Amino acid sequence: MVTQLEHDVVVSTRTTPANQVHLHTLDSLSLQRGGRIAPVTVAFETWGKLNAEGDNAILITHALTGSSHAHDAERPDDARVAWWNPLIGPGRFFDTSRYFVICSNILGSCYGSTGPSSIDPGTGHPYGIRFPIITIRDMVEAQRRLIAHLGVKQLAMVAGGSIGGQQALEWAVAYPELVRKVIVVAATAALTAQAIAFSEVERQAILADPCWQGGDYAPGQGPSAGLAIARMLAMITYQSEEGMELRFARRPARQQNVLSPSGFSDLGERFDVEGYLYYQGESLVRRFDANSYLYISRAMDLYDVSEGYPSLEAALSRLRSKALFIGIRSDFLFPAARVRWLANKVRHAGGDAIYAELDSPHGHDAFLKEWKQMIDALNLIKE
Amino acid sequence: MVTQLEHDVVVSTRTTPANQVHLHTLDSLSLQRGGRIAPVTVAFETWGKLNAEGDNAILITHALTGSSHAHDAERPDDARVAWWNPLIGPGRFFDTSRYFVICSNILGSCYGSTGPSSIDPGTGHPYGIRFPIITIRDMVEAQRRLIAHLGVKQLAMVAGGSIGGQQALEWAVAYPELVRKVIVVAATAALTAQAIAFSEVERQAILADPCWQGGDYAPGQGPSAGLAIARMLAMITYQSEEGMELRFARRPARQQNVLSPSGFSDLGERFDVEGYLYYQGESLVRRFDANSYLYISRAMDLYDVSEGYPSLEAALSRLRSKALFIGIRSDFLFPAARVRWLANKVRHAGGDAIYAELDSPHGHDAFLKEWKQMIDALNLIKE
Repeated sequence: MVTQLEHDVVVSTRTTPANQVHLHTLDSLSLQRGGRIAPVTVAFETWGKLNAEGDNAILITHALTGSSHAHDAERPDDARVAWWNPLIGPGRFFDTSRYFVICSNILGSCYGSTGPSSIDPGTGHPYGIRFPIITIRDMVEAQRRLIAHLGVKQLAMVAGGSIGGQQALEWAVAYPELVRKVIVVAATAALTAQAIAFSEVERQAILADPCWQGGDYAPGQGPSAGLAIARMLAMITYQSEEGMELRFARRPARQQNVLSPSGFSDLGERFDVEGYLYYQGESLVRRFDANSYLYISRAMDLYDVSEGYPSLEAALSRLRSKALFIGIRSDFLFPAARVRWLANKVRHAGGDAIYAELDSPHGHDAFLKEWKQMIDALNLIKE
Repeated sequence: MVTQLEHDVVVSTRTTPANQVHLHTLDSLSLQRGGRIAPVTVAFETWGKLNAEGDNAILITHALTGSSHAHDAERPDDARVAWWNPLIGPGRFFDTSRYFVICSNILGSCYGSTGPSSIDPGTGHPYGIRFPIITIRDMVEAQRRLIAHLGVKQLAMVAGGSIGGQQALEWAVAYPELVRKVIVVAATAALTAQAIAFSEVERQAILADPCWQGGDYAPGQGPSAGLAIARMLAMITYQSEEGMELRFARRPARQQNVLSPSGFSDLGERFDVEGYLYYQGESLVRRFDANSYLYISRAMDLYDVSEGYPSLEAALSRLRSKALFIGIRSDFLFPAARVRWLANKVRHAGGDAIYAELDSPHGHDAFLKEWKQMIDALNLIKE
């Protein structure tokens, strides 16, 4: 069973014949920052069929708290049940009647792939913070070994937003010969100091919760207040001043019954935005592992596409894919100007890059909401 | 003794003959949201002399974690020892050779004025969260009674930034006949949903810390991790993406020895921005009361200049002061566009309002850093 809420799009689904989550296990994975994890399970879903040449596959990469459930084959018209549902399916941009579409749960997560809540075979207990530092490159390496196992010779596309966009970019740089097209949505070459700072405040909220217990909490007894506070902050960074003003302004709360993370009541009245954030915090606590949150958000901070290369230019000059970069006007976590700058850098390094911008007030989360604009942008690299 | 750090400007001073903190006690103060506090002590400092007419006084209003120490008469040339030092003194814009300059610690604070850490005479114990909800209007009311006690008949100016700007605005609306000029820096008619949201995440970090103990912690044993996390987040909102990029970018930490609020070590490497934020969190914990933080930040959220009037226009049409509004280009807590909008609203309501903008990358905190630009802006309403 996979239950997910990708940013604030509510999604729930069950494993059914049409929505089967598969598992593939690698004996071992060597990591970019040192050490290895053995074994590594990768949970994934696929839609459509791989052709005989093995070159019609599309890899979809998900964001921080997402899962492999990018598409729901039973309910393809319900945007809430799978995070990129409106973009995937027969006749859609990621056309499952022509392509073999794959989405795998990232390394470090808690939706079937190996992460801090997995059992460490060396101790018989969950890894907790004995899980090694993982990077975007490690996530991509796990995906690369998965697609090889599935018989994929070359990817027609890799596409994702946010941390999924970092993975897509890393794919095109690390394995240029394997990626014909890359779609990087709301992601940049590296996080800003401000974005790292927000991320660290979120982690400190988790780490300071006594229920975190050095990372060795029992299932269901984790740092729920800390994780809820982290999520409240993250939700602010996924939206925008403009979008929150449209949605909440200074209206009084409609959700008076939701408990705040601390359980303490409001000073004066409750604003609508507060009730909303309490609800979002509580929702994440029900579905996500706090240690996974720590490791994946850190991988996001640590990512710098130039790492391991003499320069950013050297890294970007490796691209052979036709590249589409999509920024969002009101995104302050991965600012549009920085996405556009990256697209220009790729062009200057000799790459074939297009930049498109979603004119949305919804901030970073627009890549999970602005379906029409997303499709218009994606169509820019349809042949 | 008063020790303060106004936003991130490090300030420390002792009460000396030239830097005397005075106390004035009101028997009782009735509050805007109901109830009363009795008695109420107001801590204040003054520089210069009141004239016989009682009309050469200037009231300076401070921000969230500030104190009455806006100026240091012994060290007038050290910007770090008092929060508006470069603007106050003989021959400076707030000219202590011509004006009687007053700055009082706000109601709810912990630098000498009555707040949640004060002893409730009804119980013999600190108020804690039995302290009533206070508002910007209540702070202004305490100031009004202080200046009456000092013999001030009319204020030549009221000036402040951030929550201090909210107080200045409230002064001009509540007591138009008492204020000849008002200077509102980096403050708006009311907070945005986004700003309230940040504020509430900060409060939840404090409230969720078990050391908060329902607000009844012993001195020195309060919610230090929660308050430090709150301060980390606040410091992000006082700066800007642009300013943090200039200052920190993705550089490794210079401060490796500062403990994080949780005390837990970093995942991977420590970034410079993280070490800086840990330090800022720790500094606030040493000097500020967590319950004061809750009450004052809530007063900031609750403030809406139109409260109690038929409309915003009706509230603003009360102004008789010559008004200067100063916005900061890179401020996202009190966005420049909203400060400018407010200045325009005052003009449309018949007021005499000027708008100036600091062209600074330093975000909200620029009003405590950009001395030359501040002086240029202030000079716009010098006769």
